[in-house]
Amino acid sequence: MFSNDSMMELFSPDERLRSMLNFEAALARAEAKIGLIPAEAASTIVKVCAEGVFDTLALSSRAASAGNLAIPLLQELIAQTRKVSVEAARYIHMGATSQDVIDTGLVLQLRPAVSLLEKDVRRIEQAFAELAREHASTLLLGRTLLQPGPPIVFGLKAAGWFAAVRRGRQRLETAARKGLFLQFGGAVGTLSSLGDHGLAVAEALAAELELPLPEAPWHSHRDRVVELASSVAILVGSLGKIARDISLNMQPEIGELAEPAGKGRGGSSAMPHKRNPVGCMNILAAANRTPGLLSSLLSGMMQEHERGLGGWQAEWATFPEIFQAAAGATSAMVVVSEGLEVNVEAMRANLEATNGLTFSEALASALIPNLGRSEAHELVERLAEEVVVSGKNLALMASEDSTVTACLTEVELNRVFDPREALGSAGAMIDRLLEGEEFK
Amino acid sequence: MFSNDSMMELFSPDERLRSMLNFEAALARAEAKIGLIPAEAASTIVKVCAEGVFDTLALSSRAASAGNLAIPLLQELIAQTRKVSVEAARYIHMGATSQDVIDTGLVLQLRPAVSLLEKDVRRIEQAFAELAREHASTLLLGRTLLQPGPPIVFGLKAAGWFAAVRRGRQRLETAARKGLFLQFGGAVGTLSSLGDHGLAVAEALAAELELPLPEAPWHSHRDRVVELASSVAILVGSLGKIARDISLNMQPEIGELAEPAGKGRGGSSAMPHKRNPVGCMNILAAANRTPGLLSSLLSGMMQEHERGLGGWQAEWATFPEIFQAAAGATSAMVVVSEGLEVNVEAMRANLEATNGLTFSEALASALIPNLGRSEAHELVERLAEEVVVSGKNLALMASEDSTVTACLTEVELNRVFDPREALGSAGAMIDRLLEGEEFK
Amino acid sequence: MFSNDSMMELFSPDERLRSMLNFEAALARAEAKIGLIPAEAASTIVKVCAEGVFDTLALSSRAASAGNLAIPLLQELIAQTRKVSVEAARYIHMGATSQDVIDTGLVLQLRPAVSLLEKDVRRIEQAFAELAREHASTLLLGRTLLQPGPPIVFGLKAAGWFAAVRRGRQRLETAARKGLFLQFGGAVGTLSSLGDHGLAVAEALAAELELPLPEAPWHSHRDRVVELASSVAILVGSLGKIARDISLNMQPEIGELAEPAGKGRGGSSAMPHKRNPVGCMNILAAANRTPGLLSSLLSGMMQEHERGLGGWQAEWATFPEIFQAAAGATSAMVVVSEGLEVNVEAMRANLEATNGLTFSEALASALIPNLGRSEAHELVERLAEEVVVSGKNLALMASEDSTVTACLTEVELNRVFDPREALGSAGAMIDRLLEGEEFK
Amino acid sequence: MFSNDSMMELFSPDERLRSMLNFEAALARAEAKIGLIPAEAASTIVKVCAEGVFDTLALSSRAASAGNLAIPLLQELIAQTRKVSVEAARYIHMGATSQDVIDTGLVLQLRPAVSLLEKDVRRIEQAFAELAREHASTLLLGRTLLQPGPPIVFGLKAAGWFAAVRRGRQRLETAARKGLFLQFGGAVGTLSSLGDHGLAVAEALAAELELPLPEAPWHSHRDRVVELASSVAILVGSLGKIARDISLNMQPEIGELAEPAGKGRGGSSAMPHKRNPVGCMNILAAANRTPGLLSSLLSGMMQEHERGLGGWQAEWATFPEIFQAAAGATSAMVVVSEGLEVNVEAMRANLEATNGLTFSEALASALIPNLGRSEAHELVERLAEEVVVSGKNLALMASEDSTVTACLTEVELNRVFDPREALGSAGAMIDRLLEGEEFK
Repeated sequence: MFSNDSMMELFSPDERLRSMLNFEAALARAEAKIGLIPAEAASTIVKVCAEGVFDTLALSSRAASAGNLAIPLLQELIAQTRKVSVEAARYIHMGATSQDVIDTGLVLQLRPAVSLLEKDVRRIEQAFAELAREHASTLLLGRTLLQPGPPIVFGLKAAGWFAAVRRGRQRLETAARKGLFLQFGGAVGTLSSLGDHGLAVAEALAAELELPLPEAPWHSHRDRVVELASSVAILVGSLGKIARDISLNMQPEIGELAEPAGKGRGGSSAMPHKRNPVGCMNILAAANRTPGLLSSLLSGMMQEHERGLGGWQAEWATFPEIFQAAAGATSAMVVVSEGLEVNVEAMRANLEATNGLTFSEALASALIPNLGRSEAHELVERLAEEVVVSGKNLALMASEDSTVTACLTEVELNRVFDPREALGSAGAMIDRLLEGEEFK
Repeated sequence: MFSNDSMMELFSPDERLRSMLNFEAALARAEAKIGLIPAEAASTIVKVCAEGVFDTLALSSRAASAGNLAIPLLQELIAQTRKVSVEAARYIHMGATSQDVIDTGLVLQLRPAVSLLEKDVRRIEQAFAELAREHASTLLLGRTLLQPGPPIVFGLKAAGWFAAVRRGRQRLETAARKGLFLQFGGAVGTLSSLGDHGLAVAEALAAELELPLPEAPWHSHRDRVVELASSVAILVGSLGKIARDISLNMQPEIGELAEPAGKGRGGSSAMPHKRNPVGCMNILAAANRTPGLLSSLLSGMMQEHERGLGGWQAEWATFPEIFQAAAGATSAMVVVSEGLEVNVEAMRANLEATNGLTFSEALASALIPNLGRSEAHELVERLAEEVVVSGKNLALMASEDSTVTACLTEVELNRVFDPREALGSAGAMIDRLLEGEEFK
Repeated sequence: MFSNDSMMELFSPDERLRSMLNFEAALARAEAKIGLIPAEAASTIVKVCAEGVFDTLALSSRAASAGNLAIPLLQELIAQTRKVSVEAARYIHMGATSQDVIDTGLVLQLRPAVSLLEKDVRRIEQAFAELAREHASTLLLGRTLLQPGPPIVFGLKAAGWFAAVRRGRQRLETAARKGLFLQFGGAVGTLSSLGDHGLAVAEALAAELELPLPEAPWHSHRDRVVELASSVAILVGSLGKIARDISLNMQPEIGELAEPAGKGRGGSSAMPHKRNPVGCMNILAAANRTPGLLSSLLSGMMQEHERGLGGWQAEWATFPEIFQAAAGATSAMVVVSEGLEVNVEAMRANLEATNGLTFSEALASALIPNLGRSEAHELVERLAEEVVVSGKNLALMASEDSTVTACLTEVELNRVFDPREALGSAGAMIDRLLEGEEFK
Repeated sequence: MFSNDSMMELFSPDERLRSMLNFEAALARAEAKIGLIPAEAASTIVKVCAEGVFDTLALSSRAASAGNLAIPLLQELIAQTRKVSVEAARYIHMGATSQDVIDTGLVLQLRPAVSLLEKDVRRIEQAFAELAREHASTLLLGRTLLQPGPPIVFGLKAAGWFAAVRRGRQRLETAARKGLFLQFGGAVGTLSSLGDHGLAVAEALAAELELPLPEAPWHSHRDRVVELASSVAILVGSLGKIARDISLNMQPEIGELAEPAGKGRGGSSAMPHKRNPVGCMNILAAANRTPGLLSSLLSGMMQEHERGLGGWQAEWATFPEIFQAAAGATSAMVVVSEGLEVNVEAMRANLEATNGLTFSEALASALIPNLGRSEAHELVERLAEEVVVSGKNLALMASEDSTVTACLTEVELNRVFDPREALGSAGAMIDRLLEGEEFK
């Protein structure tokens, strides 16, 4: 399972420390602004946060017995600050608790993580919208339960993909807007050690970090961040659906779609000629991972009192993993969607290979007004069986059947078997699905 | 694991049939309105749908080999209609596919299911808001990682619960509004067998059923209904968090909260005196169920082409189960929240039993300006150890410590150990959390 | 999602009551045998348990507020027994607690449930073993990552399926043998109210119910029943893998396999000619459900002290659902495996349609001793590209390439492209996989 | 969420490469032994595998587009070998496919990973067995549904923990023995490119790696490795149950158990005096993670044909995560179990604080022979209510109740309220649970 480099970097141990230090620096600035700590002390703290060298590995190994990463990090930050100014070191972390640093640190990572996904998804949307426009009249088999049905156009399929990922992006944006807040509450969420100044510091801190201020700390109420993770999992689910479609249509016996080829892309160590659907593979792998990860976050919501025991701590691994899986999926889909090869000939050939059976519903529908539903279906079922046995075309069988010709004129029968006539509202649906899309 | 009667009824096999028949009736009316089928035929179909007697069990047992419940139901509906009018029977289900009936039928069940949950949650909100107002000054221990911390007020805890369930309800309402659509697409989602009339029928059908019309059928794009289920799972997660809090505080050694008593409620077959937290138990059981169920729905999103094989069919069991679990949780929480017994005395006693250790953070904070963070913490940690060993109160130990008295006056020291002073921004946070709440 | 009738019956509300009453009857018999209660009282209890009429629905609706089903059931059992003998009623449930009745009741349902699955799986094994023998030389494309690879034989595929379901059955049997125990511990698992007679009663009770006696009650240690559920989930996972294989090969463009046809089987309400893979569909739906259900059971293992709050109660719904899903899967696979249609012609045709590209690995392997791995692969990759462009056969291209002919004689080259030569150890593997299988 | 250093090291990117190179080296040795490749070539390959320097990061970043890590690693291995011997490079990876390297590489990591867990669990068993022996007579409250019940002894609780983790370890060992096999099948699992020598090479390779040889490759049949992961998840579930028990009893209001203290262990950044249950926290966090991870593996079992698309690749992340979570849990439990502080006084005090209500079941049981079940329960329930209201002891209330004294003599009544009499079969159960345990 693969992520992409930007997302791996964003959730690297170094970046986790960095975002926690950003919290401490912003807190010092905020408290200086309010006048709670000397401006000079704040400057020193900010400077050590920015310039100090912290041994990520050593801190991580101390975290397990300390209970979290904030404790050893703060010890180290204080030690380094004391070397510059004993006075300044006294004002570090004032009023905050470990969870404030860790949660806000996570939020500061999640915000750009959401942007990374968004950026990818917008490219995917664009690619699918273009495919939808370009193939608004490209006929192919509709397929249900992995069996062929009446024809559709590829543009409708692509427009459906487009709309699904657009909804996915919008859901993600909404959840991020509603879910990414400052965490700042002190030991038990009352900001008690800041006396009357708690909310003022909170506001200043929120402003420093450009994060919205929630009504109250959310130490043990995780619904908003879980909603964000859920929106990511749903987006990955939609990408998984699309990857499944593409990989199925990339089976050589079907051959209607292909991932773009490329140097070192999708080869096989044993089979030199193969072009594997490695993009779809990475997306499907991600889509296999996210449901279980989200279920962990949901199970972990039952957090005890003012800080949970176990549920919260499990999030530290799970949030990054969901976003990394998602990044693997969006990156791969950018490549797949922008380079997707559409084999219009194969689509037509597969359609024709059904010997007209994909028009059986159309034939039945045309017969129903005369014969009723049951009889029409029975007649068509009988003709269909003859098609399967004889290998003849259903159009021919129908034109030779006296019951059919008693019901339908030749013109009517030709319309039944004209794929253009079989598209129903596909065109209008494409327009509706693409509505508001800005691609020109 | 228990649901409640209304939700069990709503998702009973009979109701499932009922909602599918409602779809067929509405479709006939819509097609008659558009002029596609005779008004008289529509009347007959509507009448049979409403008055026909269908053998739920027999139909269900035919569903497995048919592939879905719609197929035997339609066969039966046609058979019964034919007895009234062979002509009318011809117009049944025109233009639709099994999935249209099944999905729209589900949507017609989910809509009132959402309302049932909403109604319960509003009562819970009201109960928690009242508790928050009433106990805005009721001191109790804050607790983190199942260990005591500085004091909070019970009103803050209740306000936090209130806001979490309110957000849960709002999230549910939004997801229902954005997620519950008509499903109507015919065999492969193009409404092909309705020719040019597809969208017109769709609009009329949507109007009949008072459901919004989506841009296109969503046969294999399940993101919106999965989002709805996710909002339910998150709501249950928040209820689970609250149930965990309450059940923990109902341990007799803590004894701060109790579920309401009642005839036949929470007894034990072996221990006659026990009052068990059966409400919390049902909620926690539901919260154990929903994460796994949601993960099934997410895994199932990878639905192939125009109709999925396996992923869609699994939903038929999973959606009802999630809503039933949720209903069990909301029903139980209505009872628990409206009858919650708050033992103010026990809250005070537990607070006092800590021998002032809950003020250790406050003491450390007061000392930091003079001693710096590390020294202040070391001093307090030493004093705290003496409290544990000696059983004396931290306030006393502090007042006898020369380093402390060198830093803090008696007045200052008294403030450190006054729980009223230890509440920080709790009052303001309660107001913020309850904002917009209409309880008076 | 569908189960089968036997499994639905086995986990029906009536059967749940029945198995709980069987526990109470056996307990009375055991206690009479030990001499703790009068034989006559035991006879009366046994008689009421066997012949009493209990209102399943009414009892179920009382269960939610009582906390479990055992409490109202016992009240009812006592009331009915008192009508016969006030004396006898005094000895009901002696020494037991609700969880003893409920858990042992579940075990009494799980035992035949395991047998139902086993019986189905044995039929599936037989069917696959026959297919493996019959098609030991039937060539078809091996397929990796949904792309064609070198040829295999269908017998190897079938033998792999056989071995997977056999392992699944054996795992299930082992887990049932190791996991299905009597539950009998009284209020807190010490059998305290039976004084010195606890273990003697436990032994007699275990003998009555023909269940093994565990070292101690397992009220809050659920590992053994969760292992059983896990074995079911793994079995369903293997069935899901097979169903995916079959449904993919049943795509008409591939057409190598087909589920058996049958009256009313796999039709489409909109497309009369279709034969849908409804068996595979049911299996895949089950395989979508079980992972999430098992994750609930695993999450629920963290049961508090001597009886858990929430985790245990959630099991009441989850165990039946896992077995019902599994029964749906095994029933469907019995039908699919016993009637599976194998299209040997299509297998051959698909193999030939690759223009020899499936032998590219064989060609590369043959060239490696002369050219080295990299050069051999590069050469074959170049030839393969020409095959794709030209539509010519790789065998021809190779025979015309001077580098190839410099390395390989004509005889050697013919062997490279002979599918019989390409089977490696397939035959031996089939024998190894079927070893111990008794089909003749 | 924390793992431990050994397990992190074992699943580090470097070790992943190392285990894959070990496969390639062993393959070369095996093929030389069979005589398929020159001994000298094998030596060279082995040497480059052992001494070559591979850029883990660079290879990982090439893996995403290649489709897996084996492809770039092999390219690099060949390139480095060519520098030594062009001839030798030709024989690298002969007959194998990427999945052979990756899966066997994983197995080579899982084997020592299982040992790491085992070693920890044996220490935990030993610690719990000692506690069980030591506290075979230490009375404490039994607790059900988080409410007090009749007394038990702490030795029984510890013996229950012991037996659960021992079963967990045995399950793990069995699954490892049954599940960890060589993977070696070539492109599609037939070892086709090795002609007649496939099984001979496979045997030699298995011998080289000291791994058992399976009946056939298991490329797309994952049941055995999933069973192994399931055994890990179940073990973690049992550890989670124990951690929940301990953390609940470590609540200061209960105060019966405590994790060992230690420098830098379980402190709080805001509350200097706190001793947090950080061991339990890490275990509960792990137990939150594993159910979702296992559900991913189960969902991923539906792998297509001879190599799955998505399901297999997702395993690459999920297996290490499950073992890392488990290692975090076992490491933490080693510390917790070996240093667990048992406060016998607190256990007695909590027992006494119930005012005899924990004997209500014993009292009811003693009265049933005279009064019958219903009346006995009603009487005891009434007395219990008076205890709650009056604060008097139930023993006193009972001795003053004329109905009670009419049924029971003073001696009998004293026995009812003697905790030693209330232990039922606890002692025998401890012996049964510890049976076969070797601690002396």
